[in-house]
Amino acid sequence: MRWLRFSLPGQDILRYGLLDDEDRITEIQGAPWETYAKTASRHALADVKTEVPLIPRTFYAAGLNYVKHIREYAAQTGKEINVPAQADIGYRAVNALIADGEDVIIPVGATQVEYEGELVVVIGKRARHVSKEEALQCVFGYTIGNDVSERVWQASDRTFWRCKNSDTFKPMGPWIDTEFDLSGAETVVSVNDAVTTRFDTGDMLFDIPTFISRMSQNLTLYPGDVIWMGTDGHSPHLRDGDRVRVEITGLGALQNRFVRA
Amino acid sequence: MRWLRFSLPGQDILRYGLLDDEDRITEIQGAPWETYAKTASRHALADVKTEVPLIPRTFYAAGLNYVKHIREYAAQTGKEINVPAQADIGYRAVNALIADGEDVIIPVGATQVEYEGELVVVIGKRARHVSKEEALQCVFGYTIGNDVSERVWQASDRTFWRCKNSDTFKPMGPWIDTEFDLSGAETVVSVNDAVTTRFDTGDMLFDIPTFISRMSQNLTLYPGDVIWMGTDGHSPHLRDGDRVRVEITGLGALQNRFVRA
Repeated sequence: MRWLRFSLPGQDILRYGLLDDEDRITEIQGAPWETYAKTASRHALADVKTEVPLIPRTFYAAGLNYVKHIREYAAQTGKEINVPAQADIGYRAVNALIADGEDVIIPVGATQVEYEGELVVVIGKRARHVSKEEALQCVFGYTIGNDVSERVWQASDRTFWRCKNSDTFKPMGPWIDTEFDLSGAETVVSVNDAVTTRFDTGDMLFDIPTFISRMSQNLTLYPGDVIWMGTDGHSPHLRDGDRVRVEITGLGALQNRFVRA
Repeated sequence: MRWLRFSLPGQDILRYGLLDDEDRITEIQGAPWETYAKTASRHALADVKTEVPLIPRTFYAAGLNYVKHIREYAAQTGKEINVPAQADIGYRAVNALIADGEDVIIPVGATQVEYEGELVVVIGKRARHVSKEEALQCVFGYTIGNDVSERVWQASDRTFWRCKNSDTFKPMGPWIDTEFDLSGAETVVSVNDAVTTRFDTGDMLFDIPTFISRMSQNLTLYPGDVIWMGTDGHSPHLRDGDRVRVEITGLGALQNRFVRA
């Protein structure tokens, strides 16, 4: 099933709906991971505005989780290659979230803005002290994220507050897919319709059950939390007007234009 | 005014109320920083359970923001003294929040658990691109936080996920005070009724207007965001059964017991 969060033109109300194979939406009442009911309202995908699929309670991010990306970032910055020894989760901030189709605003002073196409895990059940074997039972579904980063600020600042969390730096969507199959999935990123990065989505240093199980030893995961799983490869520096598309096999595509402030 | 979030015994519903000088609560409808109305319901402070005053949309933390604390942490860990060059804000996670009076659970494997008594700023108005002069206009009020930290994990892990954000590691409360005056305020931390740390609350490396103004150049602050302003001095290693009290002049006191899992 594909869950879309959307609004209707001229209305502020956010709604959830189920999207079918013919791009028709059946509006529902309630949240997908709680009790919900189908309503009689139907819409065509083309007639609605796609919204961020959820505002996470906690916005987790694996960060460095694909070996090639770690090597390429080290080469680019002249820093040591620093492959994480254990699955230590990081954080991003909700102020930065935007929906599929919305513009990433390149802030004043930003000079090296790059994409990072990522698989996003959406938690559907409360989880604490779960084993790797049990971990996927608390996953509701999957979506796509673009962990936009400004590399000069990433190197200069003490935290990721503006290099990773400037407003509009976290496109997420377009929907949550509950049947996504990671095996054989590929992440393909294009800039202005030319493929610039592609990698095996599942080729992670620490896989999803490893992260969830380890996190749950010290913290409670809640429905509506998200975990961004990291990226592989390398991005060109993005320029005013660039259109970036992150596609993951079977999951869909997240598209955003980059525009100078 | 003092805003308390509370529940009644045996009931899950969270309510906001105004607390008067005689410890009586007038229940309100709505959120303090939105439109609200007083109701006819009255309660005595002693009859209610104090809850976390709010679940922030984004949970910001200044981290290193008092010079003495930075020097003492460097001395303790044998690391270089690293005084931040600019006001780069960090993050904490909402899973870790607990209320005044609730227990901090020392997790299995934790050996060096310490307190950090902090002033907490609660945002009441949306803010973007504000000057230092305008910054305090978006502040709704103030509360108290204890940024509990496990120093071995802080040194060993790639992120702060478990050293700072293990469940129960972020006591916050007991209420939000809208008239707190920082000038002359002192933060006093006691363990089992003996004072162990005291410092001038306002003796910050980067003050509140500096943080808010700088943050707002790249991100939007929203009502219900919080900013923890950092701590000074040094904490003993806390042990099973220790009672920690963080008091800030004019603001109240936050008290929590530390208990081994």
